[in-house]
Amino acid sequence: MKFKEKTIESREIFKGKMINLRLDTVELPNGKISTREVVEHPGAVAVVALTSEEKVLLVRQYRKACEEELLEIPAGKLDPGEDPDDAAIRELEEETGYRAESLKKLVSCYTSPGFADEMVHIYLAENLTPTSQATDEDEFLSIHHFSWQEIIEMLKRGELKDAKTVTGLLMVMVQKGVEL
Amino acid sequence: MKFKEKTIESREIFKGKMINLRLDTVELPNGKISTREVVEHPGAVAVVALTSEEKVLLVRQYRKACEEELLEIPAGKLDPGEDPDDAAIRELEEETGYRAESLKKLVSCYTSPGFADEMVHIYLAENLTPTSQATDEDEFLSIHHFSWQEIIEMLKRGELKDAKTVTGLLMVMVQKGVEL
Repeated sequence: MKFKEKTIESREIFKGKMINLRLDTVELPNGKISTREVVEHPGAVAVVALTSEEKVLLVRQYRKACEEELLEIPAGKLDPGEDPDDAAIRELEEETGYRAESLKKLVSCYTSPGFADEMVHIYLAENLTPTSQATDEDEFLSIHHFSWQEIIEMLKRGELKDAKTVTGLLMVMVQKGVEL
Repeated sequence: MKFKEKTIESREIFKGKMINLRLDTVELPNGKISTREVVEHPGAVAVVALTSEEKVLLVRQYRKACEEELLEIPAGKLDPGEDPDDAAIRELEEETGYRAESLKKLVSCYTSPGFADEMVHIYLAENLTPTSQATDEDEFLSIHHFSWQEIIEMLKRGELKDAKTVTGLLMVMVQKGVEL
């Protein structure tokens, strides 16, 4: 890796319940010294879930950082040491009350590589069985079902504003040959 | 917005060159009190740039937060008060040495709404004119050209790991009817 930045010093700025922040002093490829702000995040899973009626499940929730309600595919943080495949099945059931027997991995990507190490693993879930919803204590959300036609219209109108949601939906659209 | 979380107190934790961090104390919809960690970011632009030979321009650079080199579409932070359309043209030229006369907006989305307010505006640029590259002082990158077939193979092998890159490329693939 010819552009690698060597860490000279690493300073912990903040340890939180969701993220940590550290400030790294690095040596650049040209030998100069600079600093990099790094947000540490445990990683996340997200699921494009299709019901037997080919409806897409989205959850609406308030996002404090954005100060607005967003429609997103079901998602959540990884527990310490948790396998992403297991986390995806767990989060889907907790948030939506649907259980998937198996999931297909769509893509894993860094959400904001310029300042965060968060990687989100995105899955496709089909053949869902209704069970019961069990959201976290400080999690408030509502569940909505959309046809692909409605998804396409929301995409075109810019109403889907969450990156992992847009990525997961587009990935399934490309695989299924749905046109925008 | 029925799930809105009212801010009771907001505490600044860190002010950096790329991000700020604050800790908000909020009142949840059920009246209970919780905290939210919020990373403030100025927002970003990213560009799917197609050359006259229908090649996609990607830049390879080291991402300290991820401790690896990533292939990404050209992108950068918004300057204070800068219009995203102008920033996209500026960043494309600075990073790749190609100038686009006009851009088409593909999508705007929050990269990590669970903890950050960063919104990335993604564009499509065609009809490029070669000018000259002018990267920032602490920015080291190389430019690469890929055919759509190569992009599809990299997507399938999981070699494109940056969310905005995957989102932008899939958006163009869906619009152009490219199949995965």
